[in-house]
Amino acid sequence: MGAGLGEGEGEGAAVEEATGYEVGIVVPKLSRAAAAGGGEDCVARLVRELEGAGLLVERVRGVPAEFIKLAAPMGTLGRAAAEMQMKKLTYIGMELQFEWDQVAAFVRQPDGSLFSWRERYCCFRYLIYGIVNKTNSEITLKFDHKEFHWKQNESLLTRLESEGVVKLVFPLHDEIKRKQLLRNWALNWLDFTWQPIDEIYSYFGTKIATYFAFLGMYTRWLFFPAVFGLATQLIDFGSLQWLVLPAFFIFVISWAVFFLQFWKRKNSALLARWGINCSLSEYKNMGNELGSLGDSLTVEEKKFGDVSAEKRNLQRNEWFGVLLRIRNNAIIVLAIICLQLPFELAYAHLYEITETEVMRYLLTAIYLVAIQYYTRIGGKVSVNLIKYENNQGEESSSASLVYKVFGLYFMQSYIGLFYHASLYRDILALRKVLIQRLIVLENLIENSIPYLKYSYKKYIAVHKKKHEKESPSGKSVRLSTRVEKEYLKPSYTASIGAELEDGLFDDFLELTLQFGMIMMFACAFPLIFCFAALNNATEIRADALKLLVMLKRPVPRAAATIGAWLNIFQFLVVMAICTNCLLLVCLYDAEGNWRIEPGLAAILIMEHALLLIKFGFSHFVPEEPAWVKANRVRYVAQAQTVCSKQLLKSISKLDAKLD
Amino acid sequence: MGAGLGEGEGEGAAVEEATGYEVGIVVPKLSRAAAAGGGEDCVARLVRELEGAGLLVERVRGVPAEFIKLAAPMGTLGRAAAEMQMKKLTYIGMELQFEWDQVAAFVRQPDGSLFSWRERYCCFRYLIYGIVNKTNSEITLKFDHKEFHWKQNESLLTRLESEGVVKLVFPLHDEIKRKQLLRNWALNWLDFTWQPIDEIYSYFGTKIATYFAFLGMYTRWLFFPAVFGLATQLIDFGSLQWLVLPAFFIFVISWAVFFLQFWKRKNSALLARWGINCSLSEYKNMGNELGSLGDSLTVEEKKFGDVSAEKRNLQRNEWFGVLLRIRNNAIIVLAIICLQLPFELAYAHLYEITETEVMRYLLTAIYLVAIQYYTRIGGKVSVNLIKYENNQGEESSSASLVYKVFGLYFMQSYIGLFYHASLYRDILALRKVLIQRLIVLENLIENSIPYLKYSYKKYIAVHKKKHEKESPSGKSVRLSTRVEKEYLKPSYTASIGAELEDGLFDDFLELTLQFGMIMMFACAFPLIFCFAALNNATEIRADALKLLVMLKRPVPRAAATIGAWLNIFQFLVVMAICTNCLLLVCLYDAEGNWRIEPGLAAILIMEHALLLIKFGFSHFVPEEPAWVKANRVRYVAQAQTVCSKQLLKSISKLDAKLD
Repeated sequence: MGAGLGEGEGEGAAVEEATGYEVGIVVPKLSRAAAAGGGEDCVARLVRELEGAGLLVERVRGVPAEFIKLAAPMGTLGRAAAEMQMKKLTYIGMELQFEWDQVAAFVRQPDGSLFSWRERYCCFRYLIYGIVNKTNSEITLKFDHKEFHWKQNESLLTRLESEGVVKLVFPLHDEIKRKQLLRNWALNWLDFTWQPIDEIYSYFGTKIATYFAFLGMYTRWLFFPAVFGLATQLIDFGSLQWLVLPAFFIFVISWAVFFLQFWKRKNSALLARWGINCSLSEYKNMGNELGSLGDSLTVEEKKFGDVSAEKRNLQRNEWFGVLLRIRNNAIIVLAIICLQLPFELAYAHLYEITETEVMRYLLTAIYLVAIQYYTRIGGKVSVNLIKYENNQGEESSSASLVYKVFGLYFMQSYIGLFYHASLYRDILALRKVLIQRLIVLENLIENSIPYLKYSYKKYIAVHKKKHEKESPSGKSVRLSTRVEKEYLKPSYTASIGAELEDGLFDDFLELTLQFGMIMMFACAFPLIFCFAALNNATEIRADALKLLVMLKRPVPRAAATIGAWLNIFQFLVVMAICTNCLLLVCLYDAEGNWRIEPGLAAILIMEHALLLIKFGFSHFVPEEPAWVKANRVRYVAQAQTVCSKQLLKSISKLDAKLD
Repeated sequence: MGAGLGEGEGEGAAVEEATGYEVGIVVPKLSRAAAAGGGEDCVARLVRELEGAGLLVERVRGVPAEFIKLAAPMGTLGRAAAEMQMKKLTYIGMELQFEWDQVAAFVRQPDGSLFSWRERYCCFRYLIYGIVNKTNSEITLKFDHKEFHWKQNESLLTRLESEGVVKLVFPLHDEIKRKQLLRNWALNWLDFTWQPIDEIYSYFGTKIATYFAFLGMYTRWLFFPAVFGLATQLIDFGSLQWLVLPAFFIFVISWAVFFLQFWKRKNSALLARWGINCSLSEYKNMGNELGSLGDSLTVEEKKFGDVSAEKRNLQRNEWFGVLLRIRNNAIIVLAIICLQLPFELAYAHLYEITETEVMRYLLTAIYLVAIQYYTRIGGKVSVNLIKYENNQGEESSSASLVYKVFGLYFMQSYIGLFYHASLYRDILALRKVLIQRLIVLENLIENSIPYLKYSYKKYIAVHKKKHEKESPSGKSVRLSTRVEKEYLKPSYTASIGAELEDGLFDDFLELTLQFGMIMMFACAFPLIFCFAALNNATEIRADALKLLVMLKRPVPRAAATIGAWLNIFQFLVVMAICTNCLLLVCLYDAEGNWRIEPGLAAILIMEHALLLIKFGFSHFVPEEPAWVKANRVRYVAQAQTVCSKQLLKSISKLDAKLD
């Protein structure tokens, strides 16, 4: 399927020969009559202004709308970056303001280009949204017989968006690079886990490349427990058979610990290769966070004029934020325990006591519908709660969302399995459910949805066109240009909270739930690692195809680690230790003869709760007071603004000397 | 006792009026005959050269020897710092090479001075060891009829040390500041936990100030569990009595978690106040670490000329280091388990079965002597093992030593207590031992030893003098100058591995063992927190007196966190969770009726082992590959060397603008 699509789109690319056109603007098609009328047409004006800003413009008339494709010479981008005061890594490992005449001081991308895809996209947006009315009077623009005024110093694009003229601004696929990736990566079935990570990075940006690097490494590492798991099933260990499961358990936990540790190493190696200074990008994030804070502070500094008031203010803000976060987490946890847990248990119980298969299917159908709504509501509540947290920076908010939504999914995915495992000691039923979940649910649904959406939209567009034209010549209408096909493709969005996360949220969620499943029930079914390894090997290609063929090119994001998901993986390893112990108890004590004193059980539960406090609660108290951070950020900001030029000159010289 | 000493030394200070004399050099007294002979006297030459280097020199003839006291004008220190290429924090939060003419760019100390005590001491050492023979010929020097040659470009002081002329170079107490600290701090009995941390910092440097800040905060926080512990003993909770101990247990663990987290905040606040940029001092440490590595690399770079060979080399080095560390830790752990554990258990068992008190005392005496030797041998073995680890930087080696030696002491301090608690369920005996250990052993012995040493040395010196003079006038010989009293005082050294650690090792060890004791046996004896709080309140003053009055001024050290000890505190909290659970089992099941299935017990043990693996083993794999670190350090070093001057100028300007 993927191969077929790739070929089909290849024809379109050959017609266009549009390399370097990286951003598209969608405007409605004008009727010829309107175009001929008096007054200046707003789309024509937009094109003129875009050309005036130094961009290369190509207008494409498509079936559903008209498209303005934009490219930019490097000089235009560089000047935009300098105007934006974009911070960029230099050869001394410090991020400084970009200057066009000191280009030699800045670290180049692994593929030799000056700007990364994210930086280019930022520059494009800055350029096209930066077109303002610089004359001293209002300009009257016309669109389809309607007139409106473009006020002084108003952004043209924002105005056109609010008038409904500009429908969408979206990043375009680069046909040459896309083809290359399709060949080397998505359709490269020879080596299952190898991926051209650097090319993925330069095409999709850090966040997506990090996801694929993680997925690849995870799949490679899965090979070891998969082989061990297979061995436990195939080989008869004779009198040592009772030792096999505990040994497998210990192996799997150690494997996970080392895997996550080596992932951290790999991630920092990737960051170094991509010229992202990890410890200094931390500063950058802080800079974003403290941008608004800093503004409010300068006002107050003028008011009070002393440092201690500012410090007190920062401390108050910090603790207020911590309390808010604790409150919100408590709400979510309570909702999960009071609403979701009884529901899940009721379902599991009813499923267990229902006799006929038909009733079971009916029950499952009702459950799936109900849980869909519950999850959607939970996601909305989480997004709203997060808006009232004063999270610092977008990545911090999205981490907060990830934790909350994962809580919902965790309960939903595992509590039923647990119920089967622990209460009924029904290991066989557990195995059946595990296999079902791993194979059926995941890839098929996930990958068919975007294609169906695309087909539907395409059908609508073509159908409408046909209807309009009333088929004068009877020829069939086809979508001929690449850009309109891309416009009709769905974008890479999260199923939940589109403003904070993109489609990576769903991909990571799937990966995490899979990891949780195989780790937490490792002892019940060692063979599960084989299924997971196979599943992931296809997942890499499926996700690659989805991104390259079925979706719009995603908007690049800044984050360069897997962030909150790593903490969730760590948490799942700890959970896996506890659940596998429970499973071992169930397996070795199949008749339920083992007795435990209630006092001892209470003490054991208390011990586990306290270990949770020890390793969990310390996250609530930040290790560095906010005022210390603020001070440091202020110093760095001073360095970046004041000393930038001198520094850049000396770095350029140094660079010349080293070469 | 402390007050008496303080006054006694006050007289000496009034006679001298030597402020700013911060370093002393000890040389033997010359007989008058020798001084009159021909040829140049080496001590006179040394004094002349020191004066030539811009230092202020004062010669003091004391009873046991002659002393050369050194002070320096700020200009001399500044030039030395610039020559040393000392890195110093600037107002933009970056450490740059010091330049005397751009002083305004560098962050000043909280007390307004330019250099911290550690920086001053570094400059002094650079100046006095930097005196070399700059002439073209050897210079013949004479000492007490013996002649020797001072070769070209040889350091005079190193030569004199190897000839046995210079006995010691040591930092001198500053009489005015010492008096002030004695009044405000050591003898300030009004507020028990308040300490003038900034003054301690500017007098003793970061490491000691951090110790006292930690001790003060720990003592203040101990107040809460002490009150709770007292309440559990005094108040009768009636029917809820059985809930008191678990509640206390949960409270204590949460207390410890929050205490350690808030300490991290406090530590970073202290660093910000003292102008130590934490995240950049990390770079500095790396700079030290990689200094030698860098040198070896540049050689190899010339040889191979490509980056990948260097990367491979760094990776090999890194893993070799990790393997060495694992091997060494395995040796220590095996030694502890195979040698120390049986010994400790044998002692505990013999103690328990011995009937008469006399035999018990005898047994304890033998045990104490044996354990002394064992610990000393263990310490020596650890120090030797660490020499073969390629630890990066001194602080990393000392952390490695701390972990190893703490292992020895951990076993020694707690295994006996456990034996009593768990095997004999003898809680009363456990309480008795706990009180004994907390009260008797600690303060008395620790604080009397330095005073006894000092008295003995003083007696020897005076006695010798008397003997030499054959008491011609019969008048008693007294030590009259401060500097000779200081010379006779013991220095602040660790009982173990003097080359890697100073006296703080023993102080922290004591604190850690106390924390372990009160945390791990909290449920057996809640009142123990009161004893610990009282003990620590006196410990602050006792340690202050020891440092101010009884010891030489310690050599300042660079580290600004409590380092490895924090990890040990965290480890003790986790241990405390497990041991208190065991204690609760013993307490609630006094008759030993609770039974546990062997299978369940095995699974529980496995669970705890795996949790240990999860939280412990990840430390063995560094999160950042060595080559990434090396790259970053290289960039920063480039920035610091090449761009230093330009940057400094702009920072000075910026500073002037801000004022």
